[in-house]
Amino acid sequence: MLLVGWNKRVQRGYPGPGWKNTTQQIIMSMLNIDLSFRSHTCGELRPADVGEEVTLCGWVQYLRQDLFVIMRDFSGLAQILIPQDEDKMNLKTALCDLPPESVIRVKGTVRLRPDGQENKMPTGEIEVLAESVEILNVCRKLPFEIKDFVKKSESLRMQYRYLDLRSSQMQYNLRLRSQLVMKMREYLCNVHGFVDVETPTLFKRTPGGAKEFVVPSREPGRFYSLPQSPQQFKQLLMVAGIDRYFQLARCYRDEGSKPDRQPEFTQVDIEMSFVDQAGIRGLIEGLVQYSWPVEKDPVSTPFPCITYEKAMKDYGVDKPDTRFAMKLMDISETFHNTEIEFLKDALNQPGGCIQAICIPDGAKHLKGKDHESLKQTARTQFGQEDPSLLSHLLEALDSGAPPHGGIALGLDRFLSIIVGAPSIRDVIAFPKSFRGHDLMSHAPDFVSEDELKSYHIAVNWPYIKAHIC
Amino acid sequence: MLLVGWNKRVQRGYPGPGWKNTTQQIIMSMLNIDLSFRSHTCGELRPADVGEEVTLCGWVQYLRQDLFVIMRDFSGLAQILIPQDEDKMNLKTALCDLPPESVIRVKGTVRLRPDGQENKMPTGEIEVLAESVEILNVCRKLPFEIKDFVKKSESLRMQYRYLDLRSSQMQYNLRLRSQLVMKMREYLCNVHGFVDVETPTLFKRTPGGAKEFVVPSREPGRFYSLPQSPQQFKQLLMVAGIDRYFQLARCYRDEGSKPDRQPEFTQVDIEMSFVDQAGIRGLIEGLVQYSWPVEKDPVSTPFPCITYEKAMKDYGVDKPDTRFAMKLMDISETFHNTEIEFLKDALNQPGGCIQAICIPDGAKHLKGKDHESLKQTARTQFGQEDPSLLSHLLEALDSGAPPHGGIALGLDRFLSIIVGAPSIRDVIAFPKSFRGHDLMSHAPDFVSEDELKSYHIAVNWPYIKAHIC
Repeated sequence: MLLVGWNKRVQRGYPGPGWKNTTQQIIMSMLNIDLSFRSHTCGELRPADVGEEVTLCGWVQYLRQDLFVIMRDFSGLAQILIPQDEDKMNLKTALCDLPPESVIRVKGTVRLRPDGQENKMPTGEIEVLAESVEILNVCRKLPFEIKDFVKKSESLRMQYRYLDLRSSQMQYNLRLRSQLVMKMREYLCNVHGFVDVETPTLFKRTPGGAKEFVVPSREPGRFYSLPQSPQQFKQLLMVAGIDRYFQLARCYRDEGSKPDRQPEFTQVDIEMSFVDQAGIRGLIEGLVQYSWPVEKDPVSTPFPCITYEKAMKDYGVDKPDTRFAMKLMDISETFHNTEIEFLKDALNQPGGCIQAICIPDGAKHLKGKDHESLKQTARTQFGQEDPSLLSHLLEALDSGAPPHGGIALGLDRFLSIIVGAPSIRDVIAFPKSFRGHDLMSHAPDFVSEDELKSYHIAVNWPYIKAHIC
Repeated sequence: MLLVGWNKRVQRGYPGPGWKNTTQQIIMSMLNIDLSFRSHTCGELRPADVGEEVTLCGWVQYLRQDLFVIMRDFSGLAQILIPQDEDKMNLKTALCDLPPESVIRVKGTVRLRPDGQENKMPTGEIEVLAESVEILNVCRKLPFEIKDFVKKSESLRMQYRYLDLRSSQMQYNLRLRSQLVMKMREYLCNVHGFVDVETPTLFKRTPGGAKEFVVPSREPGRFYSLPQSPQQFKQLLMVAGIDRYFQLARCYRDEGSKPDRQPEFTQVDIEMSFVDQAGIRGLIEGLVQYSWPVEKDPVSTPFPCITYEKAMKDYGVDKPDTRFAMKLMDISETFHNTEIEFLKDALNQPGGCIQAICIPDGAKHLKGKDHESLKQTARTQFGQEDPSLLSHLLEALDSGAPPHGGIALGLDRFLSIIVGAPSIRDVIAFPKSFRGHDLMSHAPDFVSEDELKSYHIAVNWPYIKAHIC
C-alpha cells in the first residue's frame, strides 16, 4: 500500500515529520499521550521489531492455507501466523470462519519469516505469531472485494464509497490531499503572514457568473444563495485592512445542464493588498513549489507567462495547452479560391482570416487590480445586471479600498492533475455523480410538503404528475 | 494596536514564527520573494531603523496640526512628518485635504522624534519624514470613525462590517482565530497523523436533530439538505479505514425560531478508530493545550471529568457550569407541609423530591463508541424516524466498521470564550444578525419567479400578499 511520506511513529502519538519545535516537543512528551489501543500499525513492522509483543488492529484482507491471516490497516499489510497448537484451536476456528473485511485485534510476537518465505512487501521479512485474537466486528458479504485489481463500475464505487475508499489509490489520494493542503497553509500562514478567514456560504445572489443554488428562508419569498466563490468577501476583507487573506473555500455552482461538474468544489482563495501582478505570480509559484509532493518530479519556477492578447492570438483560447507548441496558423491563403460559403464569408469580412488548430486544457484565473480599476472591475466581474445587488460592494470600494490582487486555484483539479486521476471525483472523498447525485444516500431526495411549509414554498410538479394527483 | 505574536519580518516574505526547517528556509531564500510594494509595515518601525529609507502603505488615521499624518496598517500606527519646505508645499496640500481613511503610499526616512515628543505607542520613539506621497484611494465620508473608543450600534457595525473589521479588536480576533486554527491543524496532522477530509454540504436530510436547510435541485420535488454536522461522513470515513479524520467543518442549522444563533457555524470535527474514551480525552486536552494562545493563562490538564449521571444528579443539566460549585440540593424537607399544589404533587410522586439551583453554561459533546453499540448509537443519534433515510449508514456499519470515537468542538464558541467576546459574532468575519440576516448585503433576499422555475418551486405568499396580487 502506498503511503505519502508516512512516519511510523506519528500514529502512536510521537512527533511526526512536521515536528521541529523543541518547546512543543517537551510539552508533548510531558502529556505522554498514547491515543490508540494498538501498539503498532500493521505496515510499520520490520525485522528490527522481532521479539516485540505487539497489538495490531485492522481488517482481514484474506486467509491463506488456514495458516495465515493477512491483516490490513491504513499503513499497510502484515502477515499473522495462526498457531496450530491443540490448545489454540479455538483461535484457529474463530479466524478461519471469519469473512474477509471483518475487524480484529491481534496480540502476538513479531518473528522473522522462515527462510524462503519472505516476499517483497514492506513487512515481507516478518510475521506475527498470534497469541490472542479479538473479533471486533464481523463483516457482511460485500458487493465487491477490496482488492486493487478487482474492477468495479463507477456507479458501484460511488454507491459503496466507504468501501471504495479502502483501496490503496483512494487512501493515497485523500492522504496526499490532506498533506498538500497542510503545506499550503504553512506557506501562506507561517511564511507569508496570511490570515485564514472563513466567509459565509449563506449569502445574497451575486449577479453574473454561474447559476447559484438558492436556499429558502423562513421569510416568505426570501432566499439565501450559495456563493460560487468568495469573490465579494475577499475584496471586502481587503477594504477591512486584513492585508493578506486566504481560505480553502467551499464554492457552489449549479451547472445542472453540464455533466461531469461537481455542484460543490474547493478553491484555494487568495487576496492581498499593496501588491502587483509580479507579487501574486511570485506568491503562487512559491505556493505550488512549497506544497508540491516530494515524491513527484519537482516544479521549476518562474512559470512561463503569456498575456491574454497573445494567448488569444496564438491559440484562440485564454487557457491554451502549450505542451504541444501547436499555435494557431493563418491558413487563409489555402482557401483563397474556396467554394465553401462560410469560409468565403469569413474571408470577405474586413480583417477576416481563417486559422487552424487549438488544443484546450487547464485553467487558472489571475488578476491584479490597481485602485483605479477596482470599481470598474467589480462592475464587469459581476455583470451589468442589477447594480443594487452590489451597492454594498461599490460603497465599500469608496471607503478606503487599498490596491489589491488575488488568485483562486481549483484545488480538486490541481490534485487530480498531480495524482494523474482521470476525474476530480478521485480526489474528493464523497463526490456527486456525473448528474449531481449522491449515489450512496440518494441525495437530492424528496421532502414532505409539510417540511416545505415553513419555507413558504411548494413544488411545481410537471403536468403528468399533477394530473395523476 | 494589539497583534497576536506577530513577527515583523513575516510580511516582507521572510520566515515567520512557524518557520523551523532549514531546507525549506533555503528554498525560500532562493525564491527571494518580495511580494509587496511596501518596504516595511507601519507598526514594525523602531529606533534601530533610524536612517532607513522606507516605503509604507496604509490608511490615514488622522492629521495632527497640519504637521503629522498618523498612518495605519494591520500592524499598527506610524507618525509621518509632513515636510514644511516651500518646495514640498504640494505634498502638504495634498495630505492636508485628505479625508481620514484614505489610502496612501509614503516614501521617507526614519528618524528619532525630537526630545520630549516620544510617546508610548510601539513606534512612539520614531517618525518618518515624508519625501513623497502617493494617494492610492480617497475615502468618502464614512458612517462612523475607525476609532476604538467611538461607540457604534451593533446593527451599524454589521451593515458596514468591512469598516468594523478595521478595529483593533476585530483585527485581533480574526488573526487569533487564524493562528489558533493553524496550531490545531499542526497538532492533528503533523503530531497525530490525522487526515483532513472535506465532506459534502449538499447532502440528504438526516433524521433527528436540528432542522436542516433545504436546497432545491433541478429535479422536481428533490432537495439537497445542508447538514447540521458531518456526523454520518465521519463514521463512514472510519468504515473506510481513514483511521484518523478531522475537518474544520461548516455546519448548518435552521433554528429560525431561536434568536442569537448563527445559521452557519464551524466545528472542529474529529473521529478516530481503535480508541477508547480516555484516548479521545487525551487527544482533546492536548489539542486545546497545543493551540492555546501564548498570551493567555495556560490551560492545565487533565480536564476535570464528570459522568452524565453525576451531572444530572448534582446539577440537573448535562452541561453544568461548575465554576461556582453550586450543586443541586434536595430541599424537599423545607416543603414538607407546603400548601403549593404543584410542589405537593411532586413530593407525592414515587421518589419525588424538590431540588434547587443550577447554573447553565458551556457545552461540549463527547462520545466513545465500541462496536456493539455502533448501530444502536446510529439509530438513537439520528432518531427513530424513517430508517430508510439511514439505510446506507446502517449497511456501512455492517461492512467492517472499526470501533471508533470522536468529538466536535464548536470553534466559534471556543474562540469567543478565549477572547472574552460577548457574542460569537465577534469572532466571525461576516456573521448574520440576531434574526439570521446579513445586514450588509440584505440576505436573504427576494428571487424572481423566473429563477425559481428551474427548481420547480413557487413561493406560497401569505394570505395578505396573495390577496393584493
